[in-house]
Amino acid sequence: MRYQIITTDGRAKRAAVETVHGTIQTPVFMNVGTVAAIKGAVSTDDLRGIRTQVQLSNTYHLHVRTGDKLIRQFGGLHKFMNWDRPILTDSGGFQVFSLSGLRKIKEEGVYFQSHIDGHKIFMGPEESMQIQSNLASTIAMAFDECPPSHADFKYIQNSVDRTTRWLERCQREMARLNALPDTINQEQLLFGINQGGVVDEIRIQHARTIAEMNLSGYAVGGLAVGESHEEMYHILDVTVPHLPQDKPTYLMGVGTPANILEGVDRGIDFFDCVYPSRNGRHGHVYTNFGKLNLFNRKYELDSRPIEEGCGCPACKSYSRAYIRHLLKAKEMLGMRLCVLHNLYFYNTIMEEIRDAIEDHRYASYKAEKLERMAAGPQ
Amino acid sequence: MRYQIITTDGRAKRAAVETVHGTIQTPVFMNVGTVAAIKGAVSTDDLRGIRTQVQLSNTYHLHVRTGDKLIRQFGGLHKFMNWDRPILTDSGGFQVFSLSGLRKIKEEGVYFQSHIDGHKIFMGPEESMQIQSNLASTIAMAFDECPPSHADFKYIQNSVDRTTRWLERCQREMARLNALPDTINQEQLLFGINQGGVVDEIRIQHARTIAEMNLSGYAVGGLAVGESHEEMYHILDVTVPHLPQDKPTYLMGVGTPANILEGVDRGIDFFDCVYPSRNGRHGHVYTNFGKLNLFNRKYELDSRPIEEGCGCPACKSYSRAYIRHLLKAKEMLGMRLCVLHNLYFYNTIMEEIRDAIEDHRYASYKAEKLERMAAGPQ
Repeated sequence: MRYQIITTDGRAKRAAVETVHGTIQTPVFMNVGTVAAIKGAVSTDDLRGIRTQVQLSNTYHLHVRTGDKLIRQFGGLHKFMNWDRPILTDSGGFQVFSLSGLRKIKEEGVYFQSHIDGHKIFMGPEESMQIQSNLASTIAMAFDECPPSHADFKYIQNSVDRTTRWLERCQREMARLNALPDTINQEQLLFGINQGGVVDEIRIQHARTIAEMNLSGYAVGGLAVGESHEEMYHILDVTVPHLPQDKPTYLMGVGTPANILEGVDRGIDFFDCVYPSRNGRHGHVYTNFGKLNLFNRKYELDSRPIEEGCGCPACKSYSRAYIRHLLKAKEMLGMRLCVLHNLYFYNTIMEEIRDAIEDHRYASYKAEKLERMAAGPQ
Repeated sequence: MRYQIITTDGRAKRAAVETVHGTIQTPVFMNVGTVAAIKGAVSTDDLRGIRTQVQLSNTYHLHVRTGDKLIRQFGGLHKFMNWDRPILTDSGGFQVFSLSGLRKIKEEGVYFQSHIDGHKIFMGPEESMQIQSNLASTIAMAFDECPPSHADFKYIQNSVDRTTRWLERCQREMARLNALPDTINQEQLLFGINQGGVVDEIRIQHARTIAEMNLSGYAVGGLAVGESHEEMYHILDVTVPHLPQDKPTYLMGVGTPANILEGVDRGIDFFDCVYPSRNGRHGHVYTNFGKLNLFNRKYELDSRPIEEGCGCPACKSYSRAYIRHLLKAKEMLGMRLCVLHNLYFYNTIMEEIRDAIEDHRYASYKAEKLERMAAGPQ
């Protein structure tokens, strides 16, 4: 992997990340395909059509459902999904902590129950790396604990210390796996994850500690889990400067277009979020003038596309009225068109962001964009 | 409308039907889009991609759901769905008799309850024509009664006599509507429907009666409702010769690839059926070697497309194993890919059929095709 900063504008970085599966132009928004499929009947062919750079799949879901061993037998996630561009897999940790029922956190890892059939599973740093190695993603995420947002200082400190020890084990295990002759992607990259809730000193100390571990990239995790936007921006303000400047940074699970604009302004390269696909499935669509709810009666006879001038597959062919009709009739096509539009909208914002940084006009671009989106729907 | 027989081969006809929305090459399979959308997240853009000629929408569903008046205000179904090729709408009769709860058949029409909210609706020949005129389809179907398959001779005879009287009213009302200055499609075509259960003499007499009414086309209805395939083929054998040879014929709601091959051999031009989309949504996919059930465990690691050499969007990019994974994970994309494949399969068979008739080798083509499909999956 090679991380090359093309230019900067304030704290915003315009960079390129070279991987075995091609180069990622950052800042980038990764499109979330939970179980190796974008929800809303969207295929990898569709993703190519809307200029998606990176697809994100969930380790936990693929482990408990189809099985990472089967995907390994098939030749890895890229072959399975017919996607030759970069794939990032999460560690499974977030889902273990948010989806599973009874769970027990021990030094060795986490004992928990499958959310599908309740059977007992153990996952620790080594298991997470093994599963991600089977999936053969481009970028694997370290196995961490995301402490509950209401946790106290002591809980967070203990949790973060354990996450650091787990990260060391992830790094060792990934090195071992990448050296095995029958590993599908022997150049799999490992990103570490900074934790620490909204406690500045823990965040900073943890960032300094993991920065010394020479990982391929660094994520800020445990945000967008209930804290305010201001708290999130503050944590980025104090934390990102302590992460290596010559490595990509990733703000996990974030967020709204406004969150992304602010994250970029604080030096973030990678983003991912279920918002565009989840909102799309509920008929909520993004425009440069804010979000529209297509279930609203006022679109009943609206012959305009979701957004005038948008080049997405929905806007090029279909009206608000028709998509509203599909949504109300519970036709899957309605969800598909809204999801395609939203993902295209996010991908397009990222292109604009990259252009603005290159032209060193990011501050004015961001201000105008935020103002226009806040103005509300036309 | 102009119906031009290009050539015949035995009783099979290869024809072209010129309409205001373009020419239909027959024999043709119409793709069913119940509420102005093909189930399985398939759009009109997708239909163009798989070479669909005619889209079929259901009058009853559009009437009770979005409302034909709204679609008329929008400029008709073509504009609403962004589809400029021919559209056929059914009369609503079949759904009135199959979907609604309490219903009362009177000389004036049918009183029934909406299957959505139970509110009372009346539909007679005039109402059906008015709704279809609002939708502005290319071809409107006459409002008829499809008698229950267990009905006795007397019931069927009375029902068919009433269907004839209703047809006369449909014809008058359609002529009146087409002459109105603000009618969207003033050249809307009306097809009559032959009924009579599996009673030869009623079928024949009814065919003779309606043949004299100079309609734009003639359908054989009330088949594929529980009788055997042999009974259906027999009814076609005795009935079709009494329908005008210089008008298109349409076998409603039929059927399997084998049914279509047999129907073409008995002089049928138009077909429609929910099988390819409904089967697709359940993971049942058509191949030249019979149907596959993709839920079957044996496809778990099968890296082949559904059918080798198939040019559909599913087969060009995805494996049986991946589609199986999507279906099992209940991802909509699995259904979409299977529906696209099945519709493409049907459209391709129709192309082969047209080529075979043109080359005067329909009998041998049909025999080989049936034998290969009966051989079972590879």
